[in-house]
Amino acid sequence: MDEKMKRVFSGMRPTGKLHLGHLAGALTNWINLQDKYECFYEMADLHALTTDYQNPFGIRENITEMLLDFFAFGINPKKATVFVQSKIPEISELHLLLSMFTPLGWLERCPTYKEQVAQLKNKEITNYGFLGYPVLQTADIISVKAEKVPVGEDQVPHLELAREIVRRFNHLYGQLFPEPEAILTATPKLLGTDGRKMSKSYGNAIFLSDTPEDIGKKLATMFTDPLRPFRKDPGHPDACPVFGINALYNQANSLSIKNDCLAAKLGCTECKKNLTEVLVQYLSPYQKEREKLVKDTAGFDRIIEQGNEKTRQLVSEVLSEAKRKMGLYGY
Amino acid sequence: MDEKMKRVFSGMRPTGKLHLGHLAGALTNWINLQDKYECFYEMADLHALTTDYQNPFGIRENITEMLLDFFAFGINPKKATVFVQSKIPEISELHLLLSMFTPLGWLERCPTYKEQVAQLKNKEITNYGFLGYPVLQTADIISVKAEKVPVGEDQVPHLELAREIVRRFNHLYGQLFPEPEAILTATPKLLGTDGRKMSKSYGNAIFLSDTPEDIGKKLATMFTDPLRPFRKDPGHPDACPVFGINALYNQANSLSIKNDCLAAKLGCTECKKNLTEVLVQYLSPYQKEREKLVKDTAGFDRIIEQGNEKTRQLVSEVLSEAKRKMGLYGY
Repeated sequence: MDEKMKRVFSGMRPTGKLHLGHLAGALTNWINLQDKYECFYEMADLHALTTDYQNPFGIRENITEMLLDFFAFGINPKKATVFVQSKIPEISELHLLLSMFTPLGWLERCPTYKEQVAQLKNKEITNYGFLGYPVLQTADIISVKAEKVPVGEDQVPHLELAREIVRRFNHLYGQLFPEPEAILTATPKLLGTDGRKMSKSYGNAIFLSDTPEDIGKKLATMFTDPLRPFRKDPGHPDACPVFGINALYNQANSLSIKNDCLAAKLGCTECKKNLTEVLVQYLSPYQKEREKLVKDTAGFDRIIEQGNEKTRQLVSEVLSEAKRKMGLYGY
Repeated sequence: MDEKMKRVFSGMRPTGKLHLGHLAGALTNWINLQDKYECFYEMADLHALTTDYQNPFGIRENITEMLLDFFAFGINPKKATVFVQSKIPEISELHLLLSMFTPLGWLERCPTYKEQVAQLKNKEITNYGFLGYPVLQTADIISVKAEKVPVGEDQVPHLELAREIVRRFNHLYGQLFPEPEAILTATPKLLGTDGRKMSKSYGNAIFLSDTPEDIGKKLATMFTDPLRPFRKDPGHPDACPVFGINALYNQANSLSIKNDCLAAKLGCTECKKNLTEVLVQYLSPYQKEREKLVKDTAGFDRIIEQGNEKTRQLVSEVLSEAKRKMGLYGY
């Protein structure tokens, strides 16, 4: 490995099988980064507990589904290290240590905090752990001494908070952790079958592991251009969720689709059928890879174990350094 | 070991060498409990971090001094298991898991919380970890599945909070932890050389490891009965800090001292000299034991390591049970 490669950390909450929106957003990004950086990718199952503590068993299943997608769709375990957060106990230790000098005000003022408390009104989430979300996130990042963190615009405040906590550690106990820098990442918003943002929780997602039949059915009933009631009317592709998918996953044809739609030469039914074929063909090789992984349980488990093991070795060294700096008993 | 012995947990913040106030309070209590219960005694160094995070190196030194006193003055490592909190990483993990379902309101309403924030105005302690103090305390208690916790009146609210967190865990994930019950403990208040409560931070303490010369000097200048300006005046032993020490550490003679003082037969100087002799004699065998421990570094270290190791084995099993109940990945 190139010694000069900078280290990247990124985490994803295990929400289950990945859909087209994930692929266009985070996953493609992760796949690109693994060639340029020494990447550590985390299944943030402890973070998931902050909101899903009432049904934690679901989180566990989601991890496996998501990891299968990761490796099938292009994360290369020889390049990137993937690990499960709860399998690295040292992160919990680091989290507790950071909590000792992280002012409550920093957390209470975090813009995403109150926003989420308001949004998730149906869940009781105003728990201690939920308030400490950014502390745990900081522990994640610095546990591998990451120098770069890919983030979308909306997560910049969280990273800024992580940088503040790092500065406070370095100030109190001596320089140890690099201040993690953002790799600002554009995440194209893909719309789901009902025209809202594609999301598992909306039930409007096309999953990477969907069968050809599933894809056909979902696309067939997908919302299209609301301003084109009749086949003979010219379409508005830029406002059409189906065109959104074409633009990302059928790029070679997207210009001609756009023109044909605008000229009313292409109807929605035909357009959807074409896209179904393209998607099925595009996903097919990855899905075969996924099936192989599903069958090779031992091999798949080994990949996960190796990722956890490699991460744990590094994090355990980093934690020891932190404890030495802080002068903990026996260090 | 008697299988039916109930399990006790108790922790002390490592404040350094123990003084007469500690011996009369917590330590004597711990020594008594070790015969009736299966005791786990914790050096709560992570708790100390909540307030002393700016000077953590002091905590480390305090641990060693305090452990020397413990073992020299009567804690028997064959009966009670003594361990250092930060050496049991599983407690940090348990703390993080509990934090996920501990409502912020429970912590914010904790009577000791606001009280301490107000008291310790000169320190910046309104940190995330300080608010979470009772969560960490609960993790301590349940990490060994303690059934009994010796507490003074003032700590009852903390134990009640621990019981609430335990009930919530058992409710959400299934019965696992016993609800810890209080062993209400009277802690006689011993006054220091300046007449205030004996405390290391007031600089008015007589330490268990003080030399005969130190003890003599400290008693010689110790505050006595303010209502007895002259030797010929009758004294008021119940208001005299020196008599407080006599009452606890010179019980055999305390009645005659009281009477002689009331009758002005005994002067303060003489009284202090007598007490010095008694204290020196009383502490001497323990101090010899302490010196032995100081010299036998390897033996002392082994006691600590064995305590940590035994605790870690138990806590690690308990944590695995908790993770299984919660359905964490790989459990």
